[in-house]
Amino acid sequence: MGKIFDGKKRINRALRVLKEEKVDALLITDLINIRYLSGFTGNEASALITPEAFFLLVDSRYTLQAKLESPFFKVIKITKRIEDTIKLINRLRVKKIGFDAEAISYANFCEIERGISRGKLVPIKKGLDLIRIKKEKEEIETIRQAIGISTHGFWAMKRELRIGVREKQVADAYEFEVKKSGADKIAFDIIVASGKRSALPHGVASNKKIGEKELVVIDFGLQYQGYNTDETCTMVSGTPTPKQKEVFAVVKTAHDLAIAQIKPGVSSRRVDMVARDYIAKKGLGKYFGHGTGHGVGLAIHEEPRISTGKDEVLEEGMVFTIEPGVYIPNWGGVRIEDMVLVTGNGCEILTHLPKNLERID
Amino acid sequence: MGKIFDGKKRINRALRVLKEEKVDALLITDLINIRYLSGFTGNEASALITPEAFFLLVDSRYTLQAKLESPFFKVIKITKRIEDTIKLINRLRVKKIGFDAEAISYANFCEIERGISRGKLVPIKKGLDLIRIKKEKEEIETIRQAIGISTHGFWAMKRELRIGVREKQVADAYEFEVKKSGADKIAFDIIVASGKRSALPHGVASNKKIGEKELVVIDFGLQYQGYNTDETCTMVSGTPTPKQKEVFAVVKTAHDLAIAQIKPGVSSRRVDMVARDYIAKKGLGKYFGHGTGHGVGLAIHEEPRISTGKDEVLEEGMVFTIEPGVYIPNWGGVRIEDMVLVTGNGCEILTHLPKNLERID
Repeated sequence: MGKIFDGKKRINRALRVLKEEKVDALLITDLINIRYLSGFTGNEASALITPEAFFLLVDSRYTLQAKLESPFFKVIKITKRIEDTIKLINRLRVKKIGFDAEAISYANFCEIERGISRGKLVPIKKGLDLIRIKKEKEEIETIRQAIGISTHGFWAMKRELRIGVREKQVADAYEFEVKKSGADKIAFDIIVASGKRSALPHGVASNKKIGEKELVVIDFGLQYQGYNTDETCTMVSGTPTPKQKEVFAVVKTAHDLAIAQIKPGVSSRRVDMVARDYIAKKGLGKYFGHGTGHGVGLAIHEEPRISTGKDEVLEEGMVFTIEPGVYIPNWGGVRIEDMVLVTGNGCEILTHLPKNLERID
Repeated sequence: MGKIFDGKKRINRALRVLKEEKVDALLITDLINIRYLSGFTGNEASALITPEAFFLLVDSRYTLQAKLESPFFKVIKITKRIEDTIKLINRLRVKKIGFDAEAISYANFCEIERGISRGKLVPIKKGLDLIRIKKEKEEIETIRQAIGISTHGFWAMKRELRIGVREKQVADAYEFEVKKSGADKIAFDIIVASGKRSALPHGVASNKKIGEKELVVIDFGLQYQGYNTDETCTMVSGTPTPKQKEVFAVVKTAHDLAIAQIKPGVSSRRVDMVARDYIAKKGLGKYFGHGTGHGVGLAIHEEPRISTGKDEVLEEGMVFTIEPGVYIPNWGGVRIEDMVLVTGNGCEILTHLPKNLERID
């Protein structure tokens, strides 16, 4: 079960979307948005929000749980999620039903569209996900606690980290420790990428042993009370070579410059651009292929995106990563990642681990 | 990286679908089908199969990995998955593009449909997932190995299992052991549901301590080389009450009767019905709300479904669970689950753990 939260306040956010989009009901199919709005933590559900009532449709596996977790919702026991969602829509005679086009498959869309007798499905223009973009005080507190556990897990992992140890052993040490310390689970497959593997931006820990004079990228995170953490440290085994030091310094400066930009009113794309331009200026632009950061909360990747793509004006209460990286094929890579919180006049770095090119032996 | 497999044979399966559905290309967006066809194990990709060439579209995080893992595919480095998929379709001038309507969001469908200049998207009638429904020899071998690790993990977990221990500790013992023994990860949040919680068919291990005279449902599984396992044992703390024994016996008989039905040519719905009818005859029908089983392979839930829903004729090489259960609110529940393989003239139970009402103290 999740933390206590102000369920009314959250439903009001959904009702505001309903009003803005001029629809009679909101069909919510994304489990994370369902959790955000209702508190329900199970793995299958639909929710339907109307100005009059809020419905949570779950099958027999989850009815007891839903009643406990979602006191503001009317829990309806279903057998077939899509069919029973259609029946409810028809019974309520709602006409325009807003839905999240990203969170529903084309097959389900067609089935619902065929099934609703007098209603019409309307895609919501501003993704429903945006209701979660600014974190509430309680959410920030939970994220801080989650990061506390993750930091502890990092030190346990660091004790394992030495030349000759397999990447997987390192990753497992983190996971074992954070789960003992109250984490629900790890947030993603922990990345421990050493040597040439560090050039894989997504090098999930393998059976490779950490060698000498290797860069080691460790990207780790956990889920606690539903909230995720995400952080990356890059270390080096033995004395770093001049090139290793140089690439690290470029990424670190890009990271610091991006963070220095963050405050309410600034565009997310601008934050990305500052990191990207600096890396390009240093001649490493073609080795930085991903976005500079992403929101983190109930989802490990959420709004706002700090990238060349969708733009978002930063606001107080947003939480996201800053994680520039440089990946040189057949040589190695560096990524440095912190989580930040936008404050009234700047930002606070939520993750606490040192971001130097620390040496392991 | 996954096991060696016959990549040509698998692509031929996709080409057969292409022919049957009378389309010029197949757009594959489900990561599990992409893995099955190409060997690629990353977390984001599209694949496009035409009779002439097979394309794998991945971003800079995955290009190196894709080239290593997917020798039969032409790896294309992309920046925006949907946009670049559209560009490829337009460049190849394919006209009818089959796609899996379950594996693509309505938003992505609309974007592609708008973007393709002369082509047309056609939903594939028989889900693409069916190409995976019969397991190859190598897959069955991998599943056997996976179950071997899981069985070992069960015994490690069983050592922790006693009155007064928290459910989470029990689940963690399984996870820790199987990961040490070569599993990629656990297949789902391990269920350890004791006492009244055993009436939650999906009671993920909590901080509750196991009490006396409680039913304890443990549903556990792992992923190894991409393949999943899924098994459930129900135990009891102390001497079982007559009602606990009685409910257990009903579920066990339903489980055995269902398994006795399994052979090539039998309908999956019939297997479900045999378990369901028996439980109903014993007056417990309303407490069995889920399907009797589901296919297991690269996905934890896949075809065939052993349920009242979609029917499928069983064939040699299919692998699925048989897992009837009875869940009585505020009292407790029992589920017994094995994985079976359909053989030439019957079935083989792949999971080896005893399915008695074993006592823990």
